[in-house]
Amino acid sequence: MKLVKVANQVSIKRSVEVGTKEQRDTVKNIIKNVRARKQEAVMAYTKQFDGVLLESLLVSSQEIEAAYREMDPNMITVIQEAAQNIRSYHEQQRQTSWMMTEQNGTILGQKITPLSSVGIYIPGGTASYPSSVLMNAIPAQIAGVRRIVMVSPPDQNGKLPASVLVAASEVGIKEIYKVGGAQAIASLAYGIEGIKPVDKIVGPGNIFVALAKREVFGDVDIDMIAGPSEIVVLADESAQVNEVAADLLSQAEHDERSSSILVTPSESFAHKIAAEVKKQIADLPRKDIVEKSIRNFGRIYVTRTMDEAIEVVNELAPEHLEIMTEQPVEILGRIKHAGAIFIGRFSSEPVGDYFAGTNHVLPTNGTARFSSPLSIDDFQKKSSVVIYSEVAFRKHAHKIAAFARLEGLEAHARAIEERMK
Amino acid sequence: MKLVKVANQVSIKRSVEVGTKEQRDTVKNIIKNVRARKQEAVMAYTKQFDGVLLESLLVSSQEIEAAYREMDPNMITVIQEAAQNIRSYHEQQRQTSWMMTEQNGTILGQKITPLSSVGIYIPGGTASYPSSVLMNAIPAQIAGVRRIVMVSPPDQNGKLPASVLVAASEVGIKEIYKVGGAQAIASLAYGIEGIKPVDKIVGPGNIFVALAKREVFGDVDIDMIAGPSEIVVLADESAQVNEVAADLLSQAEHDERSSSILVTPSESFAHKIAAEVKKQIADLPRKDIVEKSIRNFGRIYVTRTMDEAIEVVNELAPEHLEIMTEQPVEILGRIKHAGAIFIGRFSSEPVGDYFAGTNHVLPTNGTARFSSPLSIDDFQKKSSVVIYSEVAFRKHAHKIAAFARLEGLEAHARAIEERMK
Repeated sequence: MKLVKVANQVSIKRSVEVGTKEQRDTVKNIIKNVRARKQEAVMAYTKQFDGVLLESLLVSSQEIEAAYREMDPNMITVIQEAAQNIRSYHEQQRQTSWMMTEQNGTILGQKITPLSSVGIYIPGGTASYPSSVLMNAIPAQIAGVRRIVMVSPPDQNGKLPASVLVAASEVGIKEIYKVGGAQAIASLAYGIEGIKPVDKIVGPGNIFVALAKREVFGDVDIDMIAGPSEIVVLADESAQVNEVAADLLSQAEHDERSSSILVTPSESFAHKIAAEVKKQIADLPRKDIVEKSIRNFGRIYVTRTMDEAIEVVNELAPEHLEIMTEQPVEILGRIKHAGAIFIGRFSSEPVGDYFAGTNHVLPTNGTARFSSPLSIDDFQKKSSVVIYSEVAFRKHAHKIAAFARLEGLEAHARAIEERMK
Repeated sequence: MKLVKVANQVSIKRSVEVGTKEQRDTVKNIIKNVRARKQEAVMAYTKQFDGVLLESLLVSSQEIEAAYREMDPNMITVIQEAAQNIRSYHEQQRQTSWMMTEQNGTILGQKITPLSSVGIYIPGGTASYPSSVLMNAIPAQIAGVRRIVMVSPPDQNGKLPASVLVAASEVGIKEIYKVGGAQAIASLAYGIEGIKPVDKIVGPGNIFVALAKREVFGDVDIDMIAGPSEIVVLADESAQVNEVAADLLSQAEHDERSSSILVTPSESFAHKIAAEVKKQIADLPRKDIVEKSIRNFGRIYVTRTMDEAIEVVNELAPEHLEIMTEQPVEILGRIKHAGAIFIGRFSSEPVGDYFAGTNHVLPTNGTARFSSPLSIDDFQKKSSVVIYSEVAFRKHAHKIAAFARLEGLEAHARAIEERMK
């Protein structure tokens, strides 16, 4: 890992998924065709990209039952327990509609309404991501979204992974379609025979999915376009070298472009971590990815003091922050920007990725400066409510009309004055 | 106004600001130049586009004092009263950090942190928009944003409107710069000599501002890209014809592309409104704009029943909704999508635009299906917090490692197991 003594220059190497011109054109073309020829186009793309000619996109109850039989029962229990933890945490995020009443009869309020329908994209390919199903679906459910649809690309046998189907079934998703890529995003945004359009699309995906989400944004809402994942560990000599190194490596296995960063005021600790990272890499199954990620994006920032280290963390605004210092809890109040903050030795990032209950969909690329973890806020919207009383109106009408005229909007002023006639 | 008997097809004509290729290229070029040559470029663009060679971008305290002398004292009082109302309403939106503690020692939480810095764009040109200053700055202030910067293009004498300066001063904005257009957005996003970059840019603007915001998005956050404004009035024969017509016209004066829409179950009422709109248009100062807007985007949807009318409103998902029916309050619970809901005869839209206290920055173009009014939520972000206890860790470690392996992420599993050694 590259060791950097900090003066002023710190950064997470940003990389945003804008794709090549060819990829963007491909995506635009797929969306156009799906809008024009609907299911016919989707079936053709599924044959082309996923290598399977499906009879039906909808996952049947038989397929769900088969998935349960296929799964290790212990893993089903783990998924259920994780789902329960995620539910408990996100239930705390509930907000309620409120109103303020005035003596003169006026009522002002804020009404909270769930989104009507949401689509969740779950990537396919070689891996399966049941945890993503839980993390995206449960907040939508708690927010009160009535219709939650899941889409995921089928394998060459026309199947979805058992773990993904079980996770979806555990959180009560009824509508699951075997469709992936830009054609899935287009189907969700504009509808095809058998799939009604949704109001928002969430969930991770490859470059084609990311570009398609960008393309349909505005017609429907989307969640963030996630960049590569990052971890920053803030640690001093009280931390366990093997644990810090292992946490850095767990981030690096996601993607060659993932960033694993240590910030520490101890140069000797920094050297120990660098050596331990090297040692642990040796027998990791995803060694190639990990090595590239560590070489290109791995950093150890050595600062003069802990105060300076905290400043560096705030500059980085990481997606994941682990604090493993002598007094980690005392540092929490000084963290300005981070998607998720893991405090102390036993709060290893995978605890939050899978099980503790917090969401693993987090702002990447330094956007923790202004963005939040996925939450039930993403699945509700607010309306302001004005019930203005006659007493209030008669008292303030002339001021409102004057304000409108100050801005040159005469028809606004007259709308008020028509009521004074 | 075009009268349509509703069967199935209803829509607000959408129009999104994507600009021409030339406009997009111009904006990209301006941003590039401001990033490269900074203040020098900004001064040159201000000369070119605003026709004035400024000595300093920063508004001086002398200019603020002059603005106060120039303003009608009564209008200062109105601005102060409006600001107070906006403050009272938005204070209700405060959220607090929370935690949940478990018997085994684990603590999970959600920490709320204000954005560090925000830039507010206020359009210039012929009109002045003090209300936009209040609506954008006050929620940021209540959210706890420490640094709020305002930018607005100067007139040919190098001045900003007195009303805008007074509004900014009333809400305590200290940093005000005379710069507009794409060069203002670039300055806020990337910084120039004398203007440090901000984390988020909000506020309305012309096509160049909208395109520039789109361009810098990701490096900084932005609010929504607002489309043309819309009003939907849901009314029956109990409503006053002159008032409904005046409200429709107040929307139409904003922009030729504004939409003014009446939804009613009464055909005779529909005809009365159409006639009254025609009559009231005659002597409006912005008659040309109003006529074009009404001709192209004005609609009266006549339904068979009030139930059907409510469905139409939900299909339209309007920015502004006025309900002027016999029992307007009873309808509130049935409105699924609307930015702001104005109930009853005295809740004319300008009441909310200027004075009641709710925000006038609202989701346009049907995005009320998934977006909310500007609120303090836009100026805060959340971090999840995990303090996992040793007891909890030892109990669940094997499940977490198993879940990671189910997804093929071995290094995640090992990060857990390193702590069990």
